[in-house]
Amino acid sequence: MSKEKKSALREKKGVSVSEITNQSSIKTIKEKRRAEINTSALVTSILNKDITALSRAITLVESKNPTHLKKANKIIKACLPHANKSIRIGITGVPGVGKSTFIETFGKHITSKGKRIAVLAIDPSSSLTKGSILGDKTRMEDLVKDANVFIRPSASGDSLGGVARKTREAIILCEAAGFDVIIIETVGVGQSETTVHSMVDFFLLLKLAGAGDELQGIKRGIIEMADVIAINKADGDNLKRAKVAKVEFNRALHLYPEKLSGWQPKVTICSAINNEGINSIWELILDYVTTTSKNNYFQEKRHEQNKFWLIQTIEEQLKFEFFNHSKIKKELANQLLLIETNKKTPFAAADYLLGLT
Amino acid sequence: MSKEKKSALREKKGVSVSEITNQSSIKTIKEKRRAEINTSALVTSILNKDITALSRAITLVESKNPTHLKKANKIIKACLPHANKSIRIGITGVPGVGKSTFIETFGKHITSKGKRIAVLAIDPSSSLTKGSILGDKTRMEDLVKDANVFIRPSASGDSLGGVARKTREAIILCEAAGFDVIIIETVGVGQSETTVHSMVDFFLLLKLAGAGDELQGIKRGIIEMADVIAINKADGDNLKRAKVAKVEFNRALHLYPEKLSGWQPKVTICSAINNEGINSIWELILDYVTTTSKNNYFQEKRHEQNKFWLIQTIEEQLKFEFFNHSKIKKELANQLLLIETNKKTPFAAADYLLGLT
Repeated sequence: MSKEKKSALREKKGVSVSEITNQSSIKTIKEKRRAEINTSALVTSILNKDITALSRAITLVESKNPTHLKKANKIIKACLPHANKSIRIGITGVPGVGKSTFIETFGKHITSKGKRIAVLAIDPSSSLTKGSILGDKTRMEDLVKDANVFIRPSASGDSLGGVARKTREAIILCEAAGFDVIIIETVGVGQSETTVHSMVDFFLLLKLAGAGDELQGIKRGIIEMADVIAINKADGDNLKRAKVAKVEFNRALHLYPEKLSGWQPKVTICSAINNEGINSIWELILDYVTTTSKNNYFQEKRHEQNKFWLIQTIEEQLKFEFFNHSKIKKELANQLLLIETNKKTPFAAADYLLGLT
Repeated sequence: MSKEKKSALREKKGVSVSEITNQSSIKTIKEKRRAEINTSALVTSILNKDITALSRAITLVESKNPTHLKKANKIIKACLPHANKSIRIGITGVPGVGKSTFIETFGKHITSKGKRIAVLAIDPSSSLTKGSILGDKTRMEDLVKDANVFIRPSASGDSLGGVARKTREAIILCEAAGFDVIIIETVGVGQSETTVHSMVDFFLLLKLAGAGDELQGIKRGIIEMADVIAINKADGDNLKRAKVAKVEFNRALHLYPEKLSGWQPKVTICSAINNEGINSIWELILDYVTTTSKNNYFQEKRHEQNKFWLIQTIEEQLKFEFFNHSKIKKELANQLLLIETNKKTPFAAADYLLGLT
């Protein structure tokens, strides 16, 4: 549209105004500016240890809105150079082991040492139940009030991979906000421990004495991941049994091949509710960090984890795209039928399906 | 070209002959006919239990020549409706456990029952050493001479996935050639057991008493896969120790979760060299087949294995194509560097790389 025409149009009533005074354009421009300001202001606030800004940024990370995600990516990129300075601790244990009480006591202990601590959670059941491990914050009443503590209920997502990504990004934001210790909590019931293990520096397994799951096959993988096993509720009548369990676990741990970290996993007992044995767990973690920093494992592990998540994300996406391709969705069942009726080998069927995309 | 023109050309010397008398065309046509005749003749011979034909077909399967592979695929397709009728047995054990002697004694026992037996091998080291488990056939002197026995050294390949494919296709050919029992042998040293486990009906683990590896973490996964653990060399001074080991393994096996097959894994002792305990292993295998055929697990497992190989082959290929894409090969290292220097998250790098193809 030429200048002349625009001017002419403007003088006639009922005709849309020129672009320069078009209200919707103005709105868009303003919003864009605001978004830019917001993003960089948010980053500045996060770096200034503003917990409200941190919370808002994590909400953006967890959003499904593409505009929010774009903002989130900008914020993460800006925060990344300021991240990576915390100790990331994974804590797991079956329901009833006393995770909340442990984290409360442990958290208070760490803040008493002048450290700032963030608690995140991965809840494998949250996508089903819409609940979340830390949702019931009343379980950590004292900790919540502490200005040096940030508690965030679990990220939800459609897949564990999605939850993992959001949690990893939340870790970066918490680190940029100056938290010294990041705790990732999960329930010891399945796949989520492996996910947590692949994003933390140190893995703490909480156990109960005599709960009957010591050597169950299903728990073996988790025991193998542990850097420290802490037998909780080692108080009153339980104390003796806890000490027996400690000996048993120690024996079991020695059957595993030596860890790449050069760290021999330790077994310890504690009573979170009585604040007993908590300090020695914290000391063990500091020992672990010292040992693995010296032999360079600490940094190498983070590099490996980054590489793992790069490859993992790519592979997940490749599979997702392939199996959600309209042609594949249509043909997969047919090919399976041909295989089941011995008309095709799985390899020939794979070749055929791969040829379709 | 019209008929007239062709005739005219034919009369002039030094001008190329018409298509119908073109020697290279004739050669192509003849070769095509010969290939077709060969393929279908080979299939007929295989179905007539001709071991030479079977051998030639497996050679085609193992070839890297595309023309051979095309032929191989035709043969497999024609054989497939005649396959699937054998018992597929995986046998593994560390070097020195006496696998060759065991297979020799076991094989003779089975043929004495009127069964025909094929022995294939998966050798994880063969691609490196160019050796193969069954390459040294003199180790099975008697068995080799038996007309009811077919022994084939391990397939070689660039990847375990490639070896697996060739082995799975060799199984189909052996079954079409009327073998009742297919043994897949592998060395108990790593990944190859999982591969074998995913292509057999029954998994036999050979062990030695007091070899010190009973409860080593590294062996746990293999123990978990076993349907029967046979402690070999249970003779002379070893007999007592073998009996103790049997009790220990039985205890260990009961700690594992119940198998989907409804089959409780058994521990037994044997002396292959003295032909002791061999029949009871064969009886256990027949028991297993009866039990799992009744509860339908036998057939379900084969379906699941087929599905596994379909998905596995597709995923392998998707990854292979992506990471061998020229753009990705060029850019992957850069992205890893950006991640290591905290300029990008692994997720952002993954998004970027996925956008390149």
